[in-house]
Amino acid sequence: MTDTYVLVHGAWHTGAELEPVAQAIRAQGHHVHTPTLAGNRPGDDRSRTGLDDAIASAVDYLVAHDLREVRLVGHSYGGMVISGVAQRVPERLRRLVYINAFVPLDGQSLNDMVPPHYTALFDSLAAANAQAVTLPFPIWREAFINDADLAQAEATYARLNPHPYRTFTDPIRLERPLHELPVGKSYVNCQQDTALPHSLGWHPRLSERLGLFRLVECPGSHELLFTDPGRLARAVVEAGRD
Amino acid sequence: MTDTYVLVHGAWHTGAELEPVAQAIRAQGHHVHTPTLAGNRPGDDRSRTGLDDAIASAVDYLVAHDLREVRLVGHSYGGMVISGVAQRVPERLRRLVYINAFVPLDGQSLNDMVPPHYTALFDSLAAANAQAVTLPFPIWREAFINDADLAQAEATYARLNPHPYRTFTDPIRLERPLHELPVGKSYVNCQQDTALPHSLGWHPRLSERLGLFRLVECPGSHELLFTDPGRLARAVVEAGRD
Amino acid sequence: MTDTYVLVHGAWHTGAELEPVAQAIRAQGHHVHTPTLAGNRPGDDRSRTGLDDAIASAVDYLVAHDLREVRLVGHSYGGMVISGVAQRVPERLRRLVYINAFVPLDGQSLNDMVPPHYTALFDSLAAANAQAVTLPFPIWREAFINDADLAQAEATYARLNPHPYRTFTDPIRLERPLHELPVGKSYVNCQQDTALPHSLGWHPRLSERLGLFRLVECPGSHELLFTDPGRLARAVVEAGRD
Repeated sequence: MTDTYVLVHGAWHTGAELEPVAQAIRAQGHHVHTPTLAGNRPGDDRSRTGLDDAIASAVDYLVAHDLREVRLVGHSYGGMVISGVAQRVPERLRRLVYINAFVPLDGQSLNDMVPPHYTALFDSLAAANAQAVTLPFPIWREAFINDADLAQAEATYARLNPHPYRTFTDPIRLERPLHELPVGKSYVNCQQDTALPHSLGWHPRLSERLGLFRLVECPGSHELLFTDPGRLARAVVEAGRD
Repeated sequence: MTDTYVLVHGAWHTGAELEPVAQAIRAQGHHVHTPTLAGNRPGDDRSRTGLDDAIASAVDYLVAHDLREVRLVGHSYGGMVISGVAQRVPERLRRLVYINAFVPLDGQSLNDMVPPHYTALFDSLAAANAQAVTLPFPIWREAFINDADLAQAEATYARLNPHPYRTFTDPIRLERPLHELPVGKSYVNCQQDTALPHSLGWHPRLSERLGLFRLVECPGSHELLFTDPGRLARAVVEAGRD
Repeated sequence: MTDTYVLVHGAWHTGAELEPVAQAIRAQGHHVHTPTLAGNRPGDDRSRTGLDDAIASAVDYLVAHDLREVRLVGHSYGGMVISGVAQRVPERLRRLVYINAFVPLDGQSLNDMVPPHYTALFDSLAAANAQAVTLPFPIWREAFINDADLAQAEATYARLNPHPYRTFTDPIRLERPLHELPVGKSYVNCQQDTALPHSLGWHPRLSERLGLFRLVECPGSHELLFTDPGRLARAVVEAGRD
């Protein structure tokens, strides 16, 4: 059986960083796409791009390639995006897969789901850099890619791009709650992911907003896509298959 | 050292589904029994069988086979049953082992430990089918056997039998709290088991009612007995040995 | 790169019990020390040794060996000790690594972080034995070394030494909160460690007091140092490296 996967990257990333994961899924016989969202492309205006722009760019990608029966996978911030896509083109989707990703309620922004000390930090970073935020290296190394060695932490940090802050502060509009959407839902939880502190974590706090969903877990940090893309690919397929 | 294990199945199951686990434990040199409880046997009257009937059938099995120094293992609903057996024939038991199983307080029913949306669903299913409940396939596939592929999810679903609902609603009478019983206690937690949502989960919420107990964990869903019986057998022996 | 590790043992232990872990870290090219704290040495006066004595003995060790850029690792009670060392000689430290270890707030004792039924038990044991506490075997076997077989549980229990109770009841004085100290912080969480019940557990309850820290997790009990020292060594290096 050949399935169609679309992998939606997180903040500070582009689709290119998901290519090793995509290749491991393709090796199992599936079609895999890794678009880059509006706001994270070279030359995008980080000061203006909002959440709706990012969502629209993902919808446009599905339409332009006429993708159907899509297993739409969102990592981290990508959870905001796939939640919005699911409102607009549910007829193209087979299943939503969240990988340590935000699952919003109607009217919530990404910032509404993170600890106050992060939003305070992001506010100041955005103000200092024309509404584009970058992640300080110590946070990246300790809390995002805790399973890497220092060399890999540095090499991957160098690949990140400034992120348009409006996509963190814009509330999302969900006409139908996610748990009511007639598509499958899965949540992949990388167990050592402390990008959100475990006291205010991804799973079950955010995952259970999906209603009936399939849980898949594997060892790894928030950035397992770098530290073990093959392992993440296996989890994505276990989450994305029927 | 040859130990004696009795494996008590969960709702919708019979002892036959535990045979692959039993065989893996026997391969380590132990004696293993897999009785089927009253209410889950072919021809049993699902409308009338209550929790006491199920407990009595397990006690009868131990007595009929004159089993002693038993490591009594209960899966899921089987936790209600072994808790009742431990009240009646503690002198035959060496250790209680719960596998993602209910650990009741005196006066509690199984339904008292599950989320309200499950009891509402079960109520309506039982009312429609002469007090026998069946589990809808989407719940089985997503929340019970999330680590299987679709083919295995379907094949195992076909083996389930309607479950006598009174065993979920009957309160249990525990003259002595479980943590005071002079037998060993262990809890096996399959870590991706979302048959109970993790926000209202098996461990530590229910396991810690055992007082001093031994925790054993392994990856897997509520139905690891199907998806990796050898792995479950290893966990059961680590939990059941002295 | 050759790093310097100092491993600080927990209650009832000495440095000797950490030697297999140390050897596995040395095999990766590092220098590793395993001092025994004041209060746990043969002949130490268990009735008088307090937390400050234990901390001072660790500081003395670092000074006597003129250790610098130290990755200071504390197991369990050892977390109290390394927290105190970090106040006194921060200039000698590169990183603090807690292994299922206590992370105190200013003014807290170890007993302030454990369940009331443990402090009640310890109080009575200490009163009966000149302020030296020993751990009852059933607690050791079920809650501390749940991943061992009985033979290993017994053999390791025989190696324990009575522990000076004042080190559990003395409050620690932290002039600077740990999360403000300019050294790296990591937390190793052995996932089946029920020496503290998971409802009042090590991580994230105590780990998050470190502020920005690196989480490393691995399967195992509180006494993984006995049951799989090589696995623990791997986790320590992943936690201790830059």
